[in-house]
Amino acid sequence: MSLSAQSAPSHTFTSQSNASTSHSVGMSPELEQTLSLLSSHRSVLGYMLLSRGHPVSIIRHSGVVFEGEKGKKYAGVIGKIVETVQSGLDEISGNENDSDDVKFMRIRTKRHEIMISPDGRYLLAVLHDPST
Amino acid sequence: MSLSAQSAPSHTFTSQSNASTSHSVGMSPELEQTLSLLSSHRSVLGYMLLSRGHPVSIIRHSGVVFEGEKGKKYAGVIGKIVETVQSGLDEISGNENDSDDVKFMRIRTKRHEIMISPDGRYLLAVLHDPST
Repeated sequence: MSLSAQSAPSHTFTSQSNASTSHSVGMSPELEQTLSLLSSHRSVLGYMLLSRGHPVSIIRHSGVVFEGEKGKKYAGVIGKIVETVQSGLDEISGNENDSDDVKFMRIRTKRHEIMISPDGRYLLAVLHDPST
Repeated sequence: MSLSAQSAPSHTFTSQSNASTSHSVGMSPELEQTLSLLSSHRSVLGYMLLSRGHPVSIIRHSGVVFEGEKGKKYAGVIGKIVETVQSGLDEISGNENDSDDVKFMRIRTKRHEIMISPDGRYLLAVLHDPST
């Protein structure tokens, strides 16, 4: 998956609910399409598009599970996980000139499956209900 | 990934460490078989069986990639990743009485694939070369 956005205008994340239908973020049509395809899957509880940084910020999301405070918690946790994995990879490769990068992560939990796709500037996280 | 072993071709891992062929840890025959099956796959660079704790300790390993200092680094990093994910899940569920647990994790990096299977007391990590 390529998250490279054609344009990335500044965006203020205002409300929890109209994010998934809003086109104000100025994403490429391909990304729009991918995200709406994602949300249409019955087993997908939601997705979150985050911009990397300290702290990560929610650019866009869909799914009740990612609303409000819980969404913010998820965003923080997802950011922290990616950071831990990446700094772990850096620690392992040391200064051996063979750096490694996280490309994709799939975490199966008792309840869900969390898929995280990091990119230079963004993180896409999808929460999936494997029982559906 | 299914860890259930249909057949376990006898496999001697020729390296500095004879850990993979040692039976001194007192594992169940099933686990022995699974681990030797794992190591016999050409694309598997190595595995590590760790006991959870602070810090994690290496119970057993195979694969040059998990030898010596690098092995210790991997062990520490894998322990930290699982801890971060688990405490993230705890943070998300809060005290809502719906705790969640990590069951399996698959991390695709530029170079490798790391699979981590946590258990109450142990962590099994497998390093896989997807290009093989």
